[in-house]
Amino acid sequence: MNFMYDVIIIGSGPAGMTAAVYTSRKRLDVLIISENVGGQAMYSSEIDNYLGYKYITGEELVEKFSEHINSFGIKQEFAQVTSLRVEDGIFTVGACNGGEFKAKSVIIASGKTPRMLGVPGEKEYLGKGVAYCATCDAPMFEGLDVAVAGGGNSALDAAIQLMKIARKVTIIEKGPRLIADEIFRDKVTAAPNVEILTGTTIVEIRGSKFMESVVVEDGASGERRTLPARGVFIEIGSIPATSYLKDIVDLNANNEVIVNCACHTSLPGLFAAGDVTSVPEKQVIIAAGEGAKAALASYKYLIKLRR
Amino acid sequence: MNFMYDVIIIGSGPAGMTAAVYTSRKRLDVLIISENVGGQAMYSSEIDNYLGYKYITGEELVEKFSEHINSFGIKQEFAQVTSLRVEDGIFTVGACNGGEFKAKSVIIASGKTPRMLGVPGEKEYLGKGVAYCATCDAPMFEGLDVAVAGGGNSALDAAIQLMKIARKVTIIEKGPRLIADEIFRDKVTAAPNVEILTGTTIVEIRGSKFMESVVVEDGASGERRTLPARGVFIEIGSIPATSYLKDIVDLNANNEVIVNCACHTSLPGLFAAGDVTSVPEKQVIIAAGEGAKAALASYKYLIKLRR
Repeated sequence: MNFMYDVIIIGSGPAGMTAAVYTSRKRLDVLIISENVGGQAMYSSEIDNYLGYKYITGEELVEKFSEHINSFGIKQEFAQVTSLRVEDGIFTVGACNGGEFKAKSVIIASGKTPRMLGVPGEKEYLGKGVAYCATCDAPMFEGLDVAVAGGGNSALDAAIQLMKIARKVTIIEKGPRLIADEIFRDKVTAAPNVEILTGTTIVEIRGSKFMESVVVEDGASGERRTLPARGVFIEIGSIPATSYLKDIVDLNANNEVIVNCACHTSLPGLFAAGDVTSVPEKQVIIAAGEGAKAALASYKYLIKLRR
Repeated sequence: MNFMYDVIIIGSGPAGMTAAVYTSRKRLDVLIISENVGGQAMYSSEIDNYLGYKYITGEELVEKFSEHINSFGIKQEFAQVTSLRVEDGIFTVGACNGGEFKAKSVIIASGKTPRMLGVPGEKEYLGKGVAYCATCDAPMFEGLDVAVAGGGNSALDAAIQLMKIARKVTIIEKGPRLIADEIFRDKVTAAPNVEILTGTTIVEIRGSKFMESVVVEDGASGERRTLPARGVFIEIGSIPATSYLKDIVDLNANNEVIVNCACHTSLPGLFAAGDVTSVPEKQVIIAAGEGAKAALASYKYLIKLRR
């Protein structure tokens, strides 16, 4: 029979890692299962609002988090979680590598993954111009023309990285205006090599071996035109990683796990924290705080089980 | 007429400071009003659960937070807040120095203050043996016998600091057992110079010029005895700093400000975060996350006002 953990934490972004520190300090048997380390925080070029760090890249912050986790000697399994079921209060977590792991409680911190445009050429040119992570891929576009799809903080964050590297950056936003923070909007507006197209949609990505252009459509006139672009960074939000949870726990209309203020889900023993949840703001420091709450909620649940 | 701030933040612990960073990044006019910097975080000897810092003292962490705040150039007023009123959606914050400050929204992050035992001798020997902050006062008790009142994390944290300095440390807990984390309990149990008395109450603090002993009563037998102690660290919880809020916003039975998951209080434009609120867990990382939420909630409130 499999080892019975006190807590399995699914995901190792800021929420999962904080939950791991808190449960580990309570001397619980903890296992983290995640595909990678760091979650979406890895993909932020600059973070200046994680209290205690004036300026740090997402990658550096995740490195600090990992060192912290490792100092506690917490067990980690690297695999995608594909199933979660519960029987007589015992949770079984199934991974894509065929592994099965058992625990008395589970903390869901599996975060979100990038949303796709869903236009012709997007899949075809993935890795051949189409990108979802400016931190990873921006350096490949030195001196070239690139596009950014989206108008929120992550889109403008990508544009700010790209404008230092690319020849020209075109921000293409479907809505009537950029919705990112003023601090980001000011930066792109002031840049000489950034053009902003609002009310405009990308309808196709074209090329030969590599992508060469995006076809855009003006929302008001319906007019289409082709913009030369050797890369397009798609930053139009993300989808919660909850497909393995559909039958076990209540999700909201955005497929986020519904939690109360103490990180309880609709199922006893199952807790959730961070971007995967219905908590409205998706921020590193908020995810970390929620991870701590979920850990303490799980500890209290386990204490009651022992009575 | 006074300058009209977008947001006044009352308190500068982890919640207030994070709220300040977030509101400042939104280019809001922000003022922090607080008596000191750091709040209760200042009084933790060791913090190993603030993700990103493997080991840091409360004072060092607050130093990092302050540097962060200062890098944003946020205005600070050092004074105790004594009143808060609202008229036509405009908040007026009154301070003990007679100052009055006006804002369109307010974030309450005034935290908690230590709870007193309420026994004879406690006030008389304050600063003459009676202490509420081990970080501040522990070094004064080198080679002496001291007592600690309480059995939670902060009490055992005080005991752990003291056991390295004092000759003997007696932990006196009213309840049947220590309720602190295992990691703390293990440390005090293993220490040769720590004695633990549970089911025991301090009923009096005695001395001459300085305190010399505590009188304790066994809860079961009612028997009293006198323990020599040149110091007593009172670590029995804390009281939310909400006396200036009683008539303006809903408080719970513990006098904490009632908030929903997005840090809204019962009054529009008034938000709250951190230890002062009804959020159950009192932790630095949770307070920081809640501060970010309160800031974003206040930003959304102000955006709507501008329509």
